[in-house]
Formats: sequence, C-alpha cells, structure tokens
Amino acid sequence: MTQQVEFWFEFASTYSYPAAMRVEAMARAAGVGLVWRPFLLGPIFGAQGWNDSPFNIYPAKGRYMWRDMARICDAQGLVLKEPLRFPQNGLKAARIAMLATDEGWAGDFVRGVYLANFAGQKDISDEAVLRDLLHALGKDAPDVMTRSNDPANKDRLKVQTQTAIGKGIFGAPSFTVGEELFWGNDRLEQALDWAGKSA
Amino acid sequence: MTQQVEFWFEFASTYSYPAAMRVEAMARAAGVGLVWRPFLLGPIFGAQGWNDSPFNIYPAKGRYMWRDMARICDAQGLVLKEPLRFPQNGLKAARIAMLATDEGWAGDFVRGVYLANFAGQKDISDEAVLRDLLHALGKDAPDVMTRSNDPANKDRLKVQTQTAIGKGIFGAPSFTVGEELFWGNDRLEQALDWAGKSA
Repeated sequence: MTQQVEFWFEFASTYSYPAAMRVEAMARAAGVGLVWRPFLLGPIFGAQGWNDSPFNIYPAKGRYMWRDMARICDAQGLVLKEPLRFPQNGLKAARIAMLATDEGWAGDFVRGVYLANFAGQKDISDEAVLRDLLHALGKDAPDVMTRSNDPANKDRLKVQTQTAIGKGIFGAPSFTVGEELFWGNDRLEQALDWAGKSA
Repeated sequence: MTQQVEFWFEFASTYSYPAAMRVEAMARAAGVGLVWRPFLLGPIFGAQGWNDSPFNIYPAKGRYMWRDMARICDAQGLVLKEPLRFPQNGLKAARIAMLATDEGWAGDFVRGVYLANFAGQKDISDEAVLRDLLHALGKDAPDVMTRSNDPANKDRLKVQTQTAIGKGIFGAPSFTVGEELFWGNDRLEQALDWAGKSA
C-alpha cells in the first residue's frame, strides 16, 4: 500500500502558508508521498453562510490568528507581512496550481504564491504577479495562463473542491490519508505519522 | 517574575477535556504555576450570533471534531464517550469550580466533571451528579452547593467571563501567559514554553 498524504490548500488561507512551506520537505523526510490538492474555500464558506473569511467575521478570532501566525512563522523562520487585503482571491493561482500538479512543478509554484501573498504583500489575483512567478520558474507564462483558463481546467478545480467537501473538508489547510482527515497546519506531523503507519 | 499560565476552560467544551486532564501535571513538570480559570462560552458565542455550539451549527466541523477528539483521547489514554446531549450546561459546575479554585481543590474537581461529561455520559447540569463528585472529594456537598449559588459567587463567574473577553478569548480551552494568548488544547505545550521563557 502506498504511503501518501494529500495536502488540501487554498491560497487565501493564512495557516496554509506555513504548512505549504514545509510539507514537501517533511513528507520527503518521512518517506511519505505527497499529493498537492488546491481547492477553493469560497464555495464551502458560502454554504455555511459566510461571504468573508471567518477571521474577518469574528474579529477576536482574527486578531488571535494574526498573533498566532506571527509566532508560528517566527519559529519556522518565515517572513510574515499582513497582506494589503485579506483574504485575497486565489482563484487564478489555484487554476495554475492544478496544471502544476499534473506537470510536477506544484511545490515551487505553490510556495511562490504563498510567499508573494504573505511575505511579499503582492496581489496574487493580479496576472502580472502570477506571470512573474511563472517566469521565475522558467515557464512559458502566457502558455500556462492560457491553459489554466481552459474550461476543462476550470472544471477540474470545481470538481476538486466538490471532492474536498465529499471528504468532509471544511477549512484549510487539511490533510487526508485515505479516508482519514486532519485539519490545520498543526496536524501535519500527525498526518505524516498516520500515513507512515498506514503503509 | 512568576512563571504562570492561566488555563481558561468551559465544561461544555470538548477540547478542554484532554487539556484539563493533563494541564496540572504538565505545568508541574515544567515548573510553571497554574491558575484555573473557569468561564462561560455561552455569552461569548451569543455575542457572535451563535445560540448553539459551532460544532452543531457547522456539521462538517462537528463530525471532524469528534473524530479528532477520538484520536487525541486515544493517544492520551483517555476514555471518550460522546455525551448524550452536546453541549451540556456547565453553569453550575463552573460556579463550584470558582470556589474550588479559591480553596485549592480545583484540579480534582475539574477533572471529575470532565470525566463525568465526556467519559461517563453523565448530565453535569444535574445537581445529584455534582453532589456525587463533591462527596467523592470528601467535601460537604450541600454546603458547597449553597455557597456556589451565593449571588456574589455567581457574579464572580460573570466577571471572570468578562475578563476572558477582555483578554481576547473567544473559545476554549485557552491559555494566557501575561498578555499572551494561546487557543486550543494543542497549544498547551507552547503556552508552558512561553511561561518558562517569560520567567
């Protein structure tokens, strides 16, 4: 049986940032396979009656989150600068991440988007920002942008979000090992342990 | 400077159970003082527009929580049986916990209430259940019950809940070290580290 963890992330999600920055190295160290699973929180939050991040809807929770994130990023040696707008729209980046996953360059692209959002205070919904990231990875940016906007690719992201819902996912980051669900950056170690034991 | 962590808990709160069962031994091992801080989530949730546990309002989150709790309790060697009703009303128990904190028997009482709720499937709003717990601790149960219902004691619990809100607390369990807030059972170790470093 393959030992494998699926990493479910949304580019707007704060706690997905420290998770995304360490998941690949930690999975490799644990000998566990990693599958990148971009998805969208918008439809999931919308179904719960939220039209904004719960960190904005519930201010005490939001204030705590930023302080908690600062401690986490500090411990992990990550720069954290509060985005100029929160949450950002990660739709275009997620569509590109779908392609990157197929083509084996998801890790570098995903980390680049998170750094742009949470360390670089860049607008990740801006195609110029995404093109710059693609160039930096040696990709043909216009070609990738065009393919990411193909209706079939857009649909695949929608299907992946439905798959997330079907697995019981309600927030990001989440990790799945088979049917077992783990929610939150601070469950990464546990998910990798679970994958190791399930092998 | 005193190294001290304040443990903010609500008897209805699931994740407060594994935290309450280990906080005293872990604080002692870390050489960190512990202050028990019972408070009520009802007024805090009510102010957010919730008239029920978010784990009931958001079913996917609730399903995940019970599975996550099962894994946590399993790892910690704790029995977990889903309460017959969730959440339970912990008001009377919290009033007693205010007295127990003053009189130095909070640890045993608090653990007893959590075990009754989450391992024993007992109704912790039932005075007979609370009296049994008090008897088991060698207390004069009728006397404690009477004193817990003194208007001044009731008010102290309300004030403590307002103090929690003032510290930015929005859920349970929470830990504070001075002005620093940590939320969730999985932040206990970090809170103790913080207290140790702040000493």
